[in-house]
Amino acid sequence: MNGHLLSEPECYDLLNRYDIRVPDYCLSESVGEALSSAEKIGYPVVLKIVSPDISHKSDVGGVVTGISSPEELESEYESLLIRINKRIPDAEISGVLVSEHVEEGPEVIIGGKLDSVFGRVITFGTGGTLVELIKDISVRLLPVDRTGISEMIDKTKISAIIGGYRGGEEYDRSALEEIIADAARMFLENEDIISFDINPLILHSNGAVAVDARIIISDEKIPADTPASTPPLLSAPEKFTSPQSIAVIGASSSPGKLGYYLMHNLLPFSGDIYPVNPRGGSILGKEVFKNISDIPVIPDWAVIVVPAKSVPQVMRDAGEKGIKSAVIISAGFKEAGYEGAKLEEEVVSIAKEYGIRFAGPNCLGIMLPYEGINATFGQKMPKPGPVAFISQSGAIITAAADRGIVGNTGLSTVISVGNQADLNFSDYLGMLLKDCRTKAAVFYIEGLKPGREFTEMAGKHAKELPVIVLKAGKTEMAKKAAMSHTGSLAGSYEIYKEAFREAGIINAFSLSSAFSVAGLLASEGWPKGRRAVVVTSGGGFAVLSADFAGENGITLIPLPERMKEELDKFMPEGWSGQNPVDIIGDAGAERYARALDILIRYQDFWDIAFVAASPVTSIDPIKLAKEIVRFSKQTGKMVVGCMISGESMQPGISILNENHIPNFAELYDAFKAVGLALEAGEGAGIFDE
Amino acid sequence: MNGHLLSEPECYDLLNRYDIRVPDYCLSESVGEALSSAEKIGYPVVLKIVSPDISHKSDVGGVVTGISSPEELESEYESLLIRINKRIPDAEISGVLVSEHVEEGPEVIIGGKLDSVFGRVITFGTGGTLVELIKDISVRLLPVDRTGISEMIDKTKISAIIGGYRGGEEYDRSALEEIIADAARMFLENEDIISFDINPLILHSNGAVAVDARIIISDEKIPADTPASTPPLLSAPEKFTSPQSIAVIGASSSPGKLGYYLMHNLLPFSGDIYPVNPRGGSILGKEVFKNISDIPVIPDWAVIVVPAKSVPQVMRDAGEKGIKSAVIISAGFKEAGYEGAKLEEEVVSIAKEYGIRFAGPNCLGIMLPYEGINATFGQKMPKPGPVAFISQSGAIITAAADRGIVGNTGLSTVISVGNQADLNFSDYLGMLLKDCRTKAAVFYIEGLKPGREFTEMAGKHAKELPVIVLKAGKTEMAKKAAMSHTGSLAGSYEIYKEAFREAGIINAFSLSSAFSVAGLLASEGWPKGRRAVVVTSGGGFAVLSADFAGENGITLIPLPERMKEELDKFMPEGWSGQNPVDIIGDAGAERYARALDILIRYQDFWDIAFVAASPVTSIDPIKLAKEIVRFSKQTGKMVVGCMISGESMQPGISILNENHIPNFAELYDAFKAVGLALEAGEGAGIFDE
Repeated sequence: MNGHLLSEPECYDLLNRYDIRVPDYCLSESVGEALSSAEKIGYPVVLKIVSPDISHKSDVGGVVTGISSPEELESEYESLLIRINKRIPDAEISGVLVSEHVEEGPEVIIGGKLDSVFGRVITFGTGGTLVELIKDISVRLLPVDRTGISEMIDKTKISAIIGGYRGGEEYDRSALEEIIADAARMFLENEDIISFDINPLILHSNGAVAVDARIIISDEKIPADTPASTPPLLSAPEKFTSPQSIAVIGASSSPGKLGYYLMHNLLPFSGDIYPVNPRGGSILGKEVFKNISDIPVIPDWAVIVVPAKSVPQVMRDAGEKGIKSAVIISAGFKEAGYEGAKLEEEVVSIAKEYGIRFAGPNCLGIMLPYEGINATFGQKMPKPGPVAFISQSGAIITAAADRGIVGNTGLSTVISVGNQADLNFSDYLGMLLKDCRTKAAVFYIEGLKPGREFTEMAGKHAKELPVIVLKAGKTEMAKKAAMSHTGSLAGSYEIYKEAFREAGIINAFSLSSAFSVAGLLASEGWPKGRRAVVVTSGGGFAVLSADFAGENGITLIPLPERMKEELDKFMPEGWSGQNPVDIIGDAGAERYARALDILIRYQDFWDIAFVAASPVTSIDPIKLAKEIVRFSKQTGKMVVGCMISGESMQPGISILNENHIPNFAELYDAFKAVGLALEAGEGAGIFDE
Repeated sequence: MNGHLLSEPECYDLLNRYDIRVPDYCLSESVGEALSSAEKIGYPVVLKIVSPDISHKSDVGGVVTGISSPEELESEYESLLIRINKRIPDAEISGVLVSEHVEEGPEVIIGGKLDSVFGRVITFGTGGTLVELIKDISVRLLPVDRTGISEMIDKTKISAIIGGYRGGEEYDRSALEEIIADAARMFLENEDIISFDINPLILHSNGAVAVDARIIISDEKIPADTPASTPPLLSAPEKFTSPQSIAVIGASSSPGKLGYYLMHNLLPFSGDIYPVNPRGGSILGKEVFKNISDIPVIPDWAVIVVPAKSVPQVMRDAGEKGIKSAVIISAGFKEAGYEGAKLEEEVVSIAKEYGIRFAGPNCLGIMLPYEGINATFGQKMPKPGPVAFISQSGAIITAAADRGIVGNTGLSTVISVGNQADLNFSDYLGMLLKDCRTKAAVFYIEGLKPGREFTEMAGKHAKELPVIVLKAGKTEMAKKAAMSHTGSLAGSYEIYKEAFREAGIINAFSLSSAFSVAGLLASEGWPKGRRAVVVTSGGGFAVLSADFAGENGITLIPLPERMKEELDKFMPEGWSGQNPVDIIGDAGAERYARALDILIRYQDFWDIAFVAASPVTSIDPIKLAKEIVRFSKQTGKMVVGCMISGESMQPGISILNENHIPNFAELYDAFKAVGLALEAGEGAGIFDE
């Protein structure tokens, strides 16, 4: 988007209108004017070059501070112009700004930018010339309330200085909050502002002054974000996720063709399948219809695998037939260039005409394991379970369907989104919110647009349905962010992170982390708080637990005195008396049971329990697993199993699985999963009750 | 360790002796003296309170800068004393320092501390009053050479400012380097210094001035670290890791007793086993000897499982017999308190007397899978393989032996170190360095002491044997570090990290990360550099690869033009032309093969290749695996398989395993493992060739 920089006086005027104090100033075009301005303002004064061609004045020697007399002003005025002329010979000079000297104080930056995914965002942090070096910045999506502003300040290191660091001076935090709110209002009310930064804003013990600002204005107005206060649950037709009958257009009897794989994969489906192919005949024992119109019923779904150029006609036929849901697997659309994009537009308009909602094009298809539907050309179908997986990559779906990455977690709905020409991430989220079998949803997202619809819907329903996102494509974003400048200090990925945080979306760092958090939350629900207890007979696991808890924002509570006394009654002499509760290497399932009994009685003191064990001779894995199941049933808290072994403990792990208790084969992963849930839980408001 | 603070004049004197410039100063005990000092020094001057009770002068208002006239000095002198008297009424006041006003400039800190594990270390970073807030600090073990000092500066953010940030002034970096070297020399030559910090050292464009310093002196001298230039390969008896005959003292015929499990576990051993128990009889078909002296040969090992109090006598008997190696499994020593510690000392002295080297006490024992020896009371023995595991936790060994955590990696030597009363981590590392079957070594370490012996030995031999450490107990350290002060800004864990970095030790973050790097390096050796190529048919995996590469310091090379042209010849139209090389979703093993062929021809351009695939219908996993094997054989580079699936690709993964090509089931883990190796490789000097 093109834009131009406001001049310093224009910036000052705009800020003034929003009650943001700027220094007294006067634009002068000659040394004579400058002298009389300085007289009016009072010495000492500051001189600043004003030029539409210079955005970072300090960097080119365009600012002279501390001028304390007319003589000094005269000589500095002249050398300023000479210096600029030398360094940027072609710069157009609008004049020299004479402005009030502002008392020293901590320098902060307030910035704003129009993000292509999430719209207007505001940033706050340590300011001055070193802003990019220090990178002490926090970001919020607009609009933001006073609590949000306050949290934003708290997140930065400079907040400690503002509050009076180590007995130092305190600065006017409430004025700062006011100014951030004013700047946000300015950004929202002036729809032509693309980005701005006030830097430095100098804080004093009473008030603050915006000494410098850059505001970039576009020629067009970009409507301010008006987030729907109650995002609607966008919906596809009722039967989109529970079709009773499926037409396969482009079905084929030649192994190797997608239309064959699809038919093959759909065979186990108990509903009706109607292959369509102009050649007729039969495929895998099913009668083939030459035209959609020949099908004796109106199928709930049309799965389309014909070549791209035939898709418009197929969609028209499906529409005429009265079909309302389609899955377009065919590739050769937007992803293939200009012609493909035109074709895609045509398909969209036909779909609108007939009221068809569709997934794809250019996708792997959809799997609904509970319904026995594998409408993809992947090989395997996952086992049914509580986690949905919506993915912008088909390859990742094939891995997940094959129990790669997802581990032991079953899947409820698997959708390859393809080009999202019609149904998009928000629509799918809306569908999942209505599906009571889905207890957690994993999204693999490369690009999200528009972003707010998705994050706001996820945020509104976060308590009901935990949403986990693996956002790919960070690196390129990081690069882009690095190329742009201060106003966009918050690179796009930082904005994603903030949008996710606000919505309580879990920001996974890998596919397996996404599925392990999903499995955890699907079976245990959100943790009620950060207070955790660890019980283990492995000394090493106790030490590692303490580390991993610390790294993941999990609080290992100090054991209440009475609880310790009860443990003392049966624990071997010399036990640590601390949490992690190390019940010593010779412990069997019985000692675990006694310790867990005490945890049950003291369950008001904790929110999460980790039970870790390795295959030592004294432990019978089946007995231990049964104790963990009993424990889990007698608490309303999050119980995390960590039976760590390759083989010996499998019988115990199976018991945990059957009883929907998550088990982690690596302690690190268990704490990481809980940590990710806690991090997002704060944004989801799960601790507010 | 107790210590006292040097007064400011004492500090200045000491710094002066090491050519570190300090401001002109004079200690005055009255306002009259202060006035005449100021006259001598020249206005403006600075006043600073001098008191043994005040270490952070600025925090209590004990510093007044910019005093420009005698009148001002008089009034400030008085109010300084009043202020201090009000804030710290009991402070003993030695006087007021009048010192030269020092021109402004970037403020840095140079600190030093005596670490309990690694001895003297030096820190450098952003200084001033906000040093703990900003935490821009790097650390080096002493001694450090000029290259090390320069790297240390480069690691900090303030280095950018020193070099002239965004057209700003440049500061005297070579003076800074000189001063860091001087400070290091001061620390090494004055063996009574426990810690110091020079803060701020103010940098100018010509030279630098140490404006303030705190130096803490101990009453005793602590010898400076004199690192052995060639640390010897400490060694246990020749047969410690290849015993032919084993005596089990405390062998038992009662299932449930450790002495029984040990006998049971040792049965498959093909050498001779001599159970010893005063009761005689036979155990599991082996004749029992009533005394060690009755054994007809001199066994290579004595494995001891008698109660702690009997261990000294057993050790004496073993010594008399001529046994030179022992594994003391019995617990009840140092870990059990004062009495146990005394017992342990007795055992050590008996061992010294007879020249016995021993592992333990209080350990799980030792496993030597290649020899068929399981001298532990764990249940399972790992399969033999190239990775050694030395652990301070027995529980973790049981998990690893059971193929938990280690995954598919085989183990060469597994040692539970116990209390390390005799043989310690350094000894075991020494043994592994002599064992040609061990290609990588994993250490689980809770505490390391003395630290340098281990890290220096690892560092010296890093190219031959990659050492991977999981350091547990970080959190408690972090707490301790937080409680102490500036000189110890580098918390103990930061010092571990630095010691590991210098030695090329891989700093794993979890057990499974430790074993996955170990498996990778055991089969592939160190990577030769950071340049990587990714080949995959999964678009999502290509995008994720780019992210993960960025996060792990792995350089995805731009494809050379000629290479791209060769790929163009067979790649589907519209392929990205970039690295990651996305060979498109319909690729089979053949297209992988053609792409890999080109990688073979252009192998001078890259150091690491990732080949990623998921179970799509077009890929035959066995064919693909064979292509990866062929590829690996035709390059001398690191080849990383990422066949991502739960089930379908297992036949292919087995082929990779058989051919010692690492395979990762999660892309994130693959890049993380390579990233950890690269990070350590720099310190190990693997890129220097």
